[in-house]
Amino acid sequence: MQPRPAAHALRSVLCLLLLLPCLVLAAEPLPSWRDGPSRQAIVAFVEAVTDQGSKDYVAPAERIAVFDNDGTLWSEQPLYFEVLFSMDEVRRLAPEHPQWKTQQPFKAVLENDHKALAEQGMDGLLKIVAATHSGISTEQFLARSRSWLASARHPKTGRPYTEMVFQPMLELLGYLRDKGFRTYIVSGGEVAFMRAFAEEVYGIPPEQVIGTTLAAEYQDKDGQLSIQRLPKLLHNDDGPGKPVSIEAVIGRRPVLGFGNSDGDLQMLQWTLAGPGRRFAGLVHHTDANREWAYDRQSSVGRLDKALDIANRQGWTVVDMARDWRRVYPFDKE
Amino acid sequence: MQPRPAAHALRSVLCLLLLLPCLVLAAEPLPSWRDGPSRQAIVAFVEAVTDQGSKDYVAPAERIAVFDNDGTLWSEQPLYFEVLFSMDEVRRLAPEHPQWKTQQPFKAVLENDHKALAEQGMDGLLKIVAATHSGISTEQFLARSRSWLASARHPKTGRPYTEMVFQPMLELLGYLRDKGFRTYIVSGGEVAFMRAFAEEVYGIPPEQVIGTTLAAEYQDKDGQLSIQRLPKLLHNDDGPGKPVSIEAVIGRRPVLGFGNSDGDLQMLQWTLAGPGRRFAGLVHHTDANREWAYDRQSSVGRLDKALDIANRQGWTVVDMARDWRRVYPFDKE
Repeated sequence: MQPRPAAHALRSVLCLLLLLPCLVLAAEPLPSWRDGPSRQAIVAFVEAVTDQGSKDYVAPAERIAVFDNDGTLWSEQPLYFEVLFSMDEVRRLAPEHPQWKTQQPFKAVLENDHKALAEQGMDGLLKIVAATHSGISTEQFLARSRSWLASARHPKTGRPYTEMVFQPMLELLGYLRDKGFRTYIVSGGEVAFMRAFAEEVYGIPPEQVIGTTLAAEYQDKDGQLSIQRLPKLLHNDDGPGKPVSIEAVIGRRPVLGFGNSDGDLQMLQWTLAGPGRRFAGLVHHTDANREWAYDRQSSVGRLDKALDIANRQGWTVVDMARDWRRVYPFDKE
Repeated sequence: MQPRPAAHALRSVLCLLLLLPCLVLAAEPLPSWRDGPSRQAIVAFVEAVTDQGSKDYVAPAERIAVFDNDGTLWSEQPLYFEVLFSMDEVRRLAPEHPQWKTQQPFKAVLENDHKALAEQGMDGLLKIVAATHSGISTEQFLARSRSWLASARHPKTGRPYTEMVFQPMLELLGYLRDKGFRTYIVSGGEVAFMRAFAEEVYGIPPEQVIGTTLAAEYQDKDGQLSIQRLPKLLHNDDGPGKPVSIEAVIGRRPVLGFGNSDGDLQMLQWTLAGPGRRFAGLVHHTDANREWAYDRQSSVGRLDKALDIANRQGWTVVDMARDWRRVYPFDKE
């Protein structure tokens, strides 16, 4: 049955009206980014690789975008949030482990002795992660992580950690997905911890979260099935570990990568070394007022060698203070 | 501008004509499956979980379907095809390794001594896999695998191995994808070897291929970047290793699983143990004429314990001889 011409015309007008908000939105991607070289470089790249007539065109299946998490999608000061989680977990679990009162690195955590904790170094940190991230099923660990994320508050802002995500980066993730990209996290954080919030907060589903992994084993206890997490590091997803995990999990080379520290250098170099047009970006923490300002001297998220290379090779270095209208979703413009 | 009514009507008719083949196909999924309990169970499951009005409805993001590869999507006799590849590679690489003439398990391969090779057991096999799968970059290994797949022929059929895939399973993969499922391979085969053909042959992209993995390292040789494959097993994706890798890579529990051997038992049990309606299927090799007939006594793809459990619990056991009109794409009906 054909619609009558008048009804047909009316329907067309209605459709246009319904589309209007989409058209307006489409005209203004990345509203929290100030117009400047960073925003322009992102938009120019995305338009080039998604334009079928362009020599830089990239098929949708190859539109892989990888993002570091700590310091790139959310803050990482005064310490990586997952370390703060682990320390809270040590405190919560201490009654079940009386020996921790006299045993490092747990003693340092329980006594809030930051100097002694720092002296335990990476080894101490790994012991804390092992004690708080393993010996339970993945399901139980996800529940623990979610429970902490729901109740814990950041020592400086008093906000839930999941609110301390970067509004401009949320917009970038959405913009890329609208343009047919698949957005992945590739982070030194542990995979299950990130999966506890990545979908809700970033719109990144579990199968697109790559990170540090613990060994695990399948358990069948009288028909009760679970995946048990073991206190053994299987993959350290930092520095050169990032291209390795990208290859292992995705099996494609990304065309766009974003990081903020020397731990992202190899991921970004690997991204750029593929054929065709590529994009590498760094978030430079330059905003002591709205967030933090740190780079070469920081023990958390040190950005030194990667900053030199980025400047020399003309990567996009996002100057947080200059380029972002807002940092957090709760900021006023 | 409005199209004139006549042109409009003509266009509608044309559209309908263009859609006709799709409608016919949509009415008859799985044409190489004979009508019977297996086909009916598959279709009933898929219709239930994709019907928004059904109590069994599963949202598209959770429609994860996992498939074993060897013996489930393609044949695996007289030996897993990847083992045949490895043996061919030992022969091809032998001139560069003169010591292999006197060194087991390589000596057995070079002398075509199946008895001596069998005596080397799993250890021998791992040595052969390490020698032929590592010491090169992933890119080089993919090229080697593709070169072999393009030229090698199966000893019985004389066909390329990539033609010895099961036509009914290709249709099942396509049917599931049409219904919004994501289809994953979860196999004891090594990931990069499967990625060499999975997209072209099964329509399964690299990021949906899960399997046995080797350790790897990132190499930056004067700016020449590569992922180098190491002779070290990182994950054995067989038996209880399958639910572990599913959790690690996908982070969601599948709603449908298909296998053919005891090595798939835990994957199928893990699939079934989730909430809501689930599906577990086994391909039972019952067709000595068109393929092979084997189960409890076979050294390749042994199906014993899983068959008992499947029969007891009413899983779908596909009887290849009874249920499939065609086995391979090149078979006549």
